[in-house]
Amino acid sequence: MKTANDKRSSGCPVAYGLDSFGDRWTLLVIRDMMVHGKRTYSEFLAADEQIATNILISRLKQLEADGIVNKERDPDNRRSFIYSLTAKGLDLAPVLLEIIRWSGKHDDRENANRGIVEQLEQDPERLERKLRSPRPG
Amino acid sequence: MKTANDKRSSGCPVAYGLDSFGDRWTLLVIRDMMVHGKRTYSEFLAADEQIATNILISRLKQLEADGIVNKERDPDNRRSFIYSLTAKGLDLAPVLLEIIRWSGKHDDRENANRGIVEQLEQDPERLERKLRSPRPG
Repeated sequence: MKTANDKRSSGCPVAYGLDSFGDRWTLLVIRDMMVHGKRTYSEFLAADEQIATNILISRLKQLEADGIVNKERDPDNRRSFIYSLTAKGLDLAPVLLEIIRWSGKHDDRENANRGIVEQLEQDPERLERKLRSPRPG
Repeated sequence: MKTANDKRSSGCPVAYGLDSFGDRWTLLVIRDMMVHGKRTYSEFLAADEQIATNILISRLKQLEADGIVNKERDPDNRRSFIYSLTAKGLDLAPVLLEIIRWSGKHDDRENANRGIVEQLEQDPERLERKLRSPRPG
């Protein structure tokens, strides 16, 4: 399948990664899967950041095309789908951890959610294991 | 100054980070500063990925507003500007390193640039120090 990576390739590994997940919404969907154990379209749609349906659909398609996300029919409900991270997707855990670390250091807003930042400070290996084995919420 | 972070805040540290740098072009400009030691508008414009002038201008403004990039007049040429990473911007080095690590593992295209991936594999601390003290190219 033809993806963004074929079209505008510079060979740079930073650009390669960003072509797959260098978009705010894409990484928020990956966060929802890793951190919150979300697996369905309607769960993603319910994110606090209010993703629009057309954006969600296009980002899920792109993630599937890039081999980061797997899409399967829900065995309990044949009309809906279950999304899960592939091994390639789970390998994004360290990227997410470093974003959380950076925000934990620089986000001084009053409503900043410190829960996951504290988990990272206390035991980074444990948090990485947790992100790599997401449980349905 | 009012930034994207004030407008659509969920309190989530992943979203906070992505509001500042969760955009392909933003991180490519940060890469150009860290990895390639670029410091001027025309150097950024010359990137292999062919950034458009209006996008470059808006991303530099946002990076400045978010305290990630500093903009100063060039002492040698009062009509141009020098951009540099603030401490907050340099703290993005580990995010960039994890993106490079991920791409090094998953990018199997023939034209993939392996140079920086090999530096990372051989001595990650050294590469992080290098990214944190960019030298003009």
